[in-house]
Amino acid sequence: MPIRTLLWLAIGSLAMAAYGAPAQAAEGTNDSRPNIVMFLVDDMGWQDTSVPFHTEETPFNRRYHTPNMQRLAKSGMKFTQAYSCTVCTPTRVSLMTGLNAARHRVTNWTLRVEPATDREHDTLRFPGWNSGGLCPTSGVKRTVHATPLPAVLRQAGYRTIHTGKAHFGAVDTPGADPLNLGFDVNIAGHAAGAPASYLGTDNFSNKRSNKNRPWDVPGLEKYHGQDIFLTEALTREALVAMDQAIDDGKPFFLYVAHYAVHTPLMKDSRFYQTYRDAGLDHKEAMYSAMIEGMDKSLGDILDNIERHDLSDETIVLFTSDNGGLSAHARGGEPNTHNRPLASGKGSAYEGGIREPMIVRWPGVTKAGSTCTQPVIIEDFFPTILEMAGIEGFQQIGGVLDGRSFAGLLHGEHDDVRDERPLFWHYPNHWGGTGPGIAPSSTIRRGDWKLIYYYADGRYELFNLAEDIGEYHDLADERPEIRDRMAKELGRYLVDVDATVPVDKSSGEPVAYPGGVR
Amino acid sequence: MPIRTLLWLAIGSLAMAAYGAPAQAAEGTNDSRPNIVMFLVDDMGWQDTSVPFHTEETPFNRRYHTPNMQRLAKSGMKFTQAYSCTVCTPTRVSLMTGLNAARHRVTNWTLRVEPATDREHDTLRFPGWNSGGLCPTSGVKRTVHATPLPAVLRQAGYRTIHTGKAHFGAVDTPGADPLNLGFDVNIAGHAAGAPASYLGTDNFSNKRSNKNRPWDVPGLEKYHGQDIFLTEALTREALVAMDQAIDDGKPFFLYVAHYAVHTPLMKDSRFYQTYRDAGLDHKEAMYSAMIEGMDKSLGDILDNIERHDLSDETIVLFTSDNGGLSAHARGGEPNTHNRPLASGKGSAYEGGIREPMIVRWPGVTKAGSTCTQPVIIEDFFPTILEMAGIEGFQQIGGVLDGRSFAGLLHGEHDDVRDERPLFWHYPNHWGGTGPGIAPSSTIRRGDWKLIYYYADGRYELFNLAEDIGEYHDLADERPEIRDRMAKELGRYLVDVDATVPVDKSSGEPVAYPGGVR
Repeated sequence: MPIRTLLWLAIGSLAMAAYGAPAQAAEGTNDSRPNIVMFLVDDMGWQDTSVPFHTEETPFNRRYHTPNMQRLAKSGMKFTQAYSCTVCTPTRVSLMTGLNAARHRVTNWTLRVEPATDREHDTLRFPGWNSGGLCPTSGVKRTVHATPLPAVLRQAGYRTIHTGKAHFGAVDTPGADPLNLGFDVNIAGHAAGAPASYLGTDNFSNKRSNKNRPWDVPGLEKYHGQDIFLTEALTREALVAMDQAIDDGKPFFLYVAHYAVHTPLMKDSRFYQTYRDAGLDHKEAMYSAMIEGMDKSLGDILDNIERHDLSDETIVLFTSDNGGLSAHARGGEPNTHNRPLASGKGSAYEGGIREPMIVRWPGVTKAGSTCTQPVIIEDFFPTILEMAGIEGFQQIGGVLDGRSFAGLLHGEHDDVRDERPLFWHYPNHWGGTGPGIAPSSTIRRGDWKLIYYYADGRYELFNLAEDIGEYHDLADERPEIRDRMAKELGRYLVDVDATVPVDKSSGEPVAYPGGVR
Repeated sequence: MPIRTLLWLAIGSLAMAAYGAPAQAAEGTNDSRPNIVMFLVDDMGWQDTSVPFHTEETPFNRRYHTPNMQRLAKSGMKFTQAYSCTVCTPTRVSLMTGLNAARHRVTNWTLRVEPATDREHDTLRFPGWNSGGLCPTSGVKRTVHATPLPAVLRQAGYRTIHTGKAHFGAVDTPGADPLNLGFDVNIAGHAAGAPASYLGTDNFSNKRSNKNRPWDVPGLEKYHGQDIFLTEALTREALVAMDQAIDDGKPFFLYVAHYAVHTPLMKDSRFYQTYRDAGLDHKEAMYSAMIEGMDKSLGDILDNIERHDLSDETIVLFTSDNGGLSAHARGGEPNTHNRPLASGKGSAYEGGIREPMIVRWPGVTKAGSTCTQPVIIEDFFPTILEMAGIEGFQQIGGVLDGRSFAGLLHGEHDDVRDERPLFWHYPNHWGGTGPGIAPSSTIRRGDWKLIYYYADGRYELFNLAEDIGEYHDLADERPEIRDRMAKELGRYLVDVDATVPVDKSSGEPVAYPGGVR
């Protein structure tokens, strides 16, 4: 005779982090917590939109058609100084853990634990970073063990839905499967960071590719053979999962992480011709159409929120995972696609890290407002927990690098944020060619930004308020600022035990910035 | 303003399986569920005790001194036909998952995912088994993804304590750390299946060993340099953890999995001399003293239960993970140490798989009773869930091979069990030398037992009721029974998609028994 009875449902392939405290169940179906939609675009640059994030409208704002981003910005708050990492996996792991890349050590994009994805470099090697990505358990080599955001939200009663590109963990590690990270639903996410094809007629696969290249998009078999673009298929599936959560009376965390606008650039014929007619070359027209397809997805989701009369109960956050690609594969002149920002994806310059960002929190954000204080990707983690009413969470290791920007959304000024240093750490070799694309670490404090290059120990110093394009390196003119910031950067990296490249000739790790040891 | 508040405790390195249903918390501290102590000895044979498990007292029963096993048997039920697998990891994974080894595919002992631990064989290779062991998540190659027993108990409110040898998952996989499997506390468990040393004066380490051999016992630094045997140190820590659970008002699942009596045989000077004085050689005296040290640990735990006046609320289960080692490292005549059973650890014969087993369930088991119906290691999983009052659990994949023996403990006869076939599957090469030690699969139904050897396709058939020592192979005399059982064995292996060895010369998998395809 059982003393008490527990009901267990069929488990499937789920696993999540657990806590020292007894598990807390949702209190009921009349849940007053807000729904949260996190919309993360891939490789979208700061200017790849008709929403102006610069102080003035730019030619790019006129090129791209993103009416739904405009709609979101008009009803929410846009951020003009929002940052991600310089490539995709580090951003995604920071978003999911609240940790800075220097601390979580997933500093480059991931695919397989070994060999890691670094391109060969003339003078440096790149050992020791977490090429396995994020892992919900300990014990898996070259991974960071942390409690993922959806696991926390799920534990608190949210229905957690993953859509699109996952790219959190390498092939053959637990983190490759979003279901292992606390997502209840996984639509098309796995280890890879790009789709083999965006076309349903290709089965989202690349028949020419080697069978062992894991780029085929999983789980969308029902669209195979159809004339449908991947962005659209993902959106339709996301809407089904959203509807199911609403039917079930569960608050939902809908993570929409489009594969778009990552390479391969492909033709979304719904939007392509307009851009050709406007004079863009084939590649740039494909890119622009992928942007507009992404924006259409955002619109469909906003529409569905309205259809369910949930606008007042649903928070929408929008950003991108790194700067717009500008080094290769794009049309036009390389390294100009994010102007007025310099360079693009993979670069330490603003073009590689500054992102479009919009947040609409009903009853909190003022419609059509703008925030100019800097935020960085790991800030989303504590912000989203605060939105969900979750207090007292402790990340594994006891530290969170992220700082909630909920106050900013309330229209407050955050004095601490004015003085807070921001850090980027990319001790890796991406492979693209362009300004600032190199193994580096970076600190921003106030308007000043210092970049340290591992290959030659060189510094660059910019004043972003006066020189957003990073044309004028002031490292020699302002040595006192350079040296102070170099020391602060070095101390931080030592403090978090950041990995650095190894000099091939000496076999020794390269010096931390500022001579800090 | 948070809408509701959740309390999160510091997480440490915990992760556990989660379920489709909202998590259920313990109902309170006045918990009426029983405590459960699972005492699993390593490499202990059926005769390595003063408790007689044979129909008559044997010379071995007179050799070994296990007064606390006698005490447990006197107050509970002993099982004379209890089975484990032929080596350690398969047994541990079956215990933790309720799955037969043929299904979970962790068929041999584990250490590293690659290379697997199989010894070189003249004619066979052993690909495809889960050399990574048990894993609480999907996505880790060569592991079985299942919900571990402690995760289920923990979810239901139990304090789950791991003591001693874990050996569930390979180095660099999540399953290596018991904290990833749902244990709240881990005392000295990791990937390895043996200690580098049993001596505190050795720091439980082997200074001569290569640094990369992961045998050093972790987490017992406070005993380093002390004159203490590993079994004693583990027991002291287990008592502390038990006391803490009692203080916290939590029902506890205390898993005490001693490294003893696995090799290296070492001298526990508290008990050694008595056995020398009785005429045993050095190795056998060390072995016997290790048995008695294990028994002393059992006694300490029973004493602590009594000290807390919890005897009526605490279930104790006792068994071993495979037959007693007899092929090498022991003193005396090889392959005689489990007589009247043939052979020992690693063998398909009874000496390799039949175990001492005792269960005391206060208010349920009749004091001093004996059960002669067969039980097998995967039966513990559903039995323990039933003891904890957990109903409706679904293992990943939807299947449990284990059958609860709670009815037997209630004194009932289980008619189904009389007709139920038992299966062992060892398509591996252990490396020891002795009768029945070879890549094989085995079925027992009623009194009949059929062994199939992969290297030569040979069968052996024994009637255990008439020939417990497996001296008389009846395969040629009773071809109708041989063929019927061979087919049943083959069908089961095909049904669970069991892996089989590959013939080196042909490169093809060896045939399943009974010609089943």
